[in-house]
Amino acid sequence: MSKGLPKRSEDYSLWYNELVKRADLAENSPIRGCMIIKPYGYSIWEKMQAVLDKMFKETGHSNAYFPLFIPKSYLSKEAAHVEGFAKECAVVTHYRLKNDENGKGIIVDPEAKLEEELIIRPTSETVIWNTYKTWIQSYRDLPLLINQWANVVRWEMRTRLFLRTTEFLWQEGHTAHATRQEAISETEQMLDVYSFFAQTYMALPVYRGVKSANERFAGAEETYCIEALMQDGKALQAGTSHFLGQNFAKAFDVKFASKEGGLDYVWGTSWGVSTRLMGALIMAHSDDEGLVLPPLLAPIQVVIVPIFKNEEQLQLIEEKLLPIIKELKSKNISVKFDHSDKYSPGFKFAEYELKGVPLRVAIGPRDVENGTVELARRDTKEKTTVPQEGLSDRIEKLLNDIQENIYKKALSFRDSNTYQADDYGTFKQMLDETGGFILAHWDGTPETEEQIKEETKATIRCIPIDIKTEPGVCMITGKPSKGRVLFARAY
Amino acid sequence: MSKGLPKRSEDYSLWYNELVKRADLAENSPIRGCMIIKPYGYSIWEKMQAVLDKMFKETGHSNAYFPLFIPKSYLSKEAAHVEGFAKECAVVTHYRLKNDENGKGIIVDPEAKLEEELIIRPTSETVIWNTYKTWIQSYRDLPLLINQWANVVRWEMRTRLFLRTTEFLWQEGHTAHATRQEAISETEQMLDVYSFFAQTYMALPVYRGVKSANERFAGAEETYCIEALMQDGKALQAGTSHFLGQNFAKAFDVKFASKEGGLDYVWGTSWGVSTRLMGALIMAHSDDEGLVLPPLLAPIQVVIVPIFKNEEQLQLIEEKLLPIIKELKSKNISVKFDHSDKYSPGFKFAEYELKGVPLRVAIGPRDVENGTVELARRDTKEKTTVPQEGLSDRIEKLLNDIQENIYKKALSFRDSNTYQADDYGTFKQMLDETGGFILAHWDGTPETEEQIKEETKATIRCIPIDIKTEPGVCMITGKPSKGRVLFARAY
Repeated sequence: MSKGLPKRSEDYSLWYNELVKRADLAENSPIRGCMIIKPYGYSIWEKMQAVLDKMFKETGHSNAYFPLFIPKSYLSKEAAHVEGFAKECAVVTHYRLKNDENGKGIIVDPEAKLEEELIIRPTSETVIWNTYKTWIQSYRDLPLLINQWANVVRWEMRTRLFLRTTEFLWQEGHTAHATRQEAISETEQMLDVYSFFAQTYMALPVYRGVKSANERFAGAEETYCIEALMQDGKALQAGTSHFLGQNFAKAFDVKFASKEGGLDYVWGTSWGVSTRLMGALIMAHSDDEGLVLPPLLAPIQVVIVPIFKNEEQLQLIEEKLLPIIKELKSKNISVKFDHSDKYSPGFKFAEYELKGVPLRVAIGPRDVENGTVELARRDTKEKTTVPQEGLSDRIEKLLNDIQENIYKKALSFRDSNTYQADDYGTFKQMLDETGGFILAHWDGTPETEEQIKEETKATIRCIPIDIKTEPGVCMITGKPSKGRVLFARAY
Repeated sequence: MSKGLPKRSEDYSLWYNELVKRADLAENSPIRGCMIIKPYGYSIWEKMQAVLDKMFKETGHSNAYFPLFIPKSYLSKEAAHVEGFAKECAVVTHYRLKNDENGKGIIVDPEAKLEEELIIRPTSETVIWNTYKTWIQSYRDLPLLINQWANVVRWEMRTRLFLRTTEFLWQEGHTAHATRQEAISETEQMLDVYSFFAQTYMALPVYRGVKSANERFAGAEETYCIEALMQDGKALQAGTSHFLGQNFAKAFDVKFASKEGGLDYVWGTSWGVSTRLMGALIMAHSDDEGLVLPPLLAPIQVVIVPIFKNEEQLQLIEEKLLPIIKELKSKNISVKFDHSDKYSPGFKFAEYELKGVPLRVAIGPRDVENGTVELARRDTKEKTTVPQEGLSDRIEKLLNDIQENIYKKALSFRDSNTYQADDYGTFKQMLDETGGFILAHWDGTPETEEQIKEETKATIRCIPIDIKTEPGVCMITGKPSKGRVLFARAY
């Protein structure tokens, strides 16, 4: 707390790293690329989990749990899948330690070598489809709608707290269906669940779309995604939903007896969001004073800081506040009354600002006399003195306003940073000068996409679903394009 | 469903395995010793988690998340700890796969060998205390009250669904305190949380006690535990709470500046329960027809099965039921109305019996005429015909009765299977003939304990806290004993 955060305008990346640490969200561990999620950060993740889990269940899904380990041979069964994940797999080769006979301390026991190496799951399609083979016999067993909350490991070379870590927490949905169309509908439904969650709870506007072939999930026929814009003009993929076709069913021989008496391969989907959403939430809304949390995901929605010189003053304040706190709780508003005398009110103000508590209530002896309190909004930094009467209703309304305002601000930023470029020169200039999303024409080939990526570090974030554009010509090759696609430099 | 379960009296072990599989709780995976927790089983675990998590938070704990991987060197820092876990560690040695140049498919890339091997956490004391070193500076940072929900891996040679698996799910609390007494109070508080949970929610009576030195957690000064009795007369350790003294603080150099200005090592505790509780729940109450679930942990508390020959009859039944279902839901009672025509009512009855749904409501055209329904209790198998009027109140009361009855039955079984033995001959005879808990005198030495274990396979489950006994003499050595301890053969 002694000195302020770095400024976003000066070093966005440093600002992010420092904010994550100082707001007690997460920190790096001594294990390369693995993070420690601290209690305050974890409590935000728990709120995200609770909302998403409810939405998954309301759409008919059940949770289950599959093993952490995947035999090496399973991973190899779907060709594109192993190609996509082989280079980042943590491999278990032994199952025992022992005391070294030469006094070198604890060593891996060479006699406890596994016959087949086990991979720590980077994602669970293989172990799950191997199971579905025994769970699915007939159309009566379909659809099978399963989700898993789990940790996964992908050995990343360059890591960043929440955004890219070797181990991360996520949910992975894995569903099986009797028809192609039903699987596609499921894929689209879950994309909508994700975009609704991002917009309504995270106050984060997203573009929905499908990935180009280059950016598709390893093993999918089509990858749908939601893409958000961070304050530095870079995009962030916030969730993906994959239509797997019959790829995994074929790799693991999962067939079902259809109603008509035939025997068909099952159609599959998978979809996931991870602790990466924490990075998106932090980056999208926060400012140079600290975190800005949308009320619907804030572990503490309202903090009350009493200003007092002695026990008597505190007692007078408490008398006024206790009924109000009770009312707030009855409205399911999470409120913290911080009456500790370890720290000064000014210190507390800065601390709760850093931690993004949406609304602060301050009350001193003068307010007790006048029947008022001081309200301070975290998002706009507005302060107002208001009567104690009707305070809980006022707070309830204000929290709604704050949620809405944070979304509107992010939406306006996103919209005013979504550009069109008609030629490659303008495209490159925009990337360097303004950043943001750029809608441009592309000829649809992986080669052109790769060239753009190499020359500009921008990728096709998605072929947007919601933005209707006219046909045109590719800005690189001049070949025909069916419509603009969404480019950006991305996290 | 085609044939019944094996009988408990004939083969308890087979009965358990079959029940776990047929009731859709869990199954073995192809990965040695790792289980797949199926949706129905997982939904019971979720209920357990929700209740425990609430209790942890109400006692001041916060959740956090620490890495899956533990550097080999960390594990070695606490001598007793590494001694306890070295023989069952899964070890990650490499971080990449590649295509074999000789066409042998996907192999582990020998060039991607880790400098220091990583252990998959068997428990997280080491990685957490290594972190606490930076989190704790002064008495102001204490107590530190953290819990983690996670998967852990212990390479077991003989595994059993839920009871002993290579990977399992659990929670592990890790707390740090300024004084020895405060840490002991925390250890005892969490033992009480566990025993309250077992008795109130799982309907499982437990003996509280402390472990003998031989059975203590590797690295603890004292291990407290709760012990339950299964229907085959074997004991099951259902939860442990460890007073760690300053062992881990010393191993990881965690000191704090005290209020008085000194610099002291921190006092620690850790405590955990796991998916093993699922095994205890299943074994304690179920019968030859299937699972018996206490209502407070049942995913479906009430199932309603309509008996109908055509759509019209079903519609009449639905008209009567919909307001009742609404009332039940408003009482937070989870109810399933199974009106599918895929299966016959008889098939459904057997299925819900197998799955342990506490209360079944059946209603046919005759009931519609008479304004009645048929209620069937899972625990006692009693059937009664009752009026539809006041049904939701009646059901609410019945669910309470069932919860209480399941507990009382287990308590009476446990109490009538807790014996006293005064000489070793009687002790051995009881073990073979009646099983159960045996209170006997022991001279307090590890040697005598070891001898008893080798000769009888019985272990000291705990030195009981709640059972007061007189001093006496050891049944083996004749040396003095301060009081009886609780022996049993155990899972």
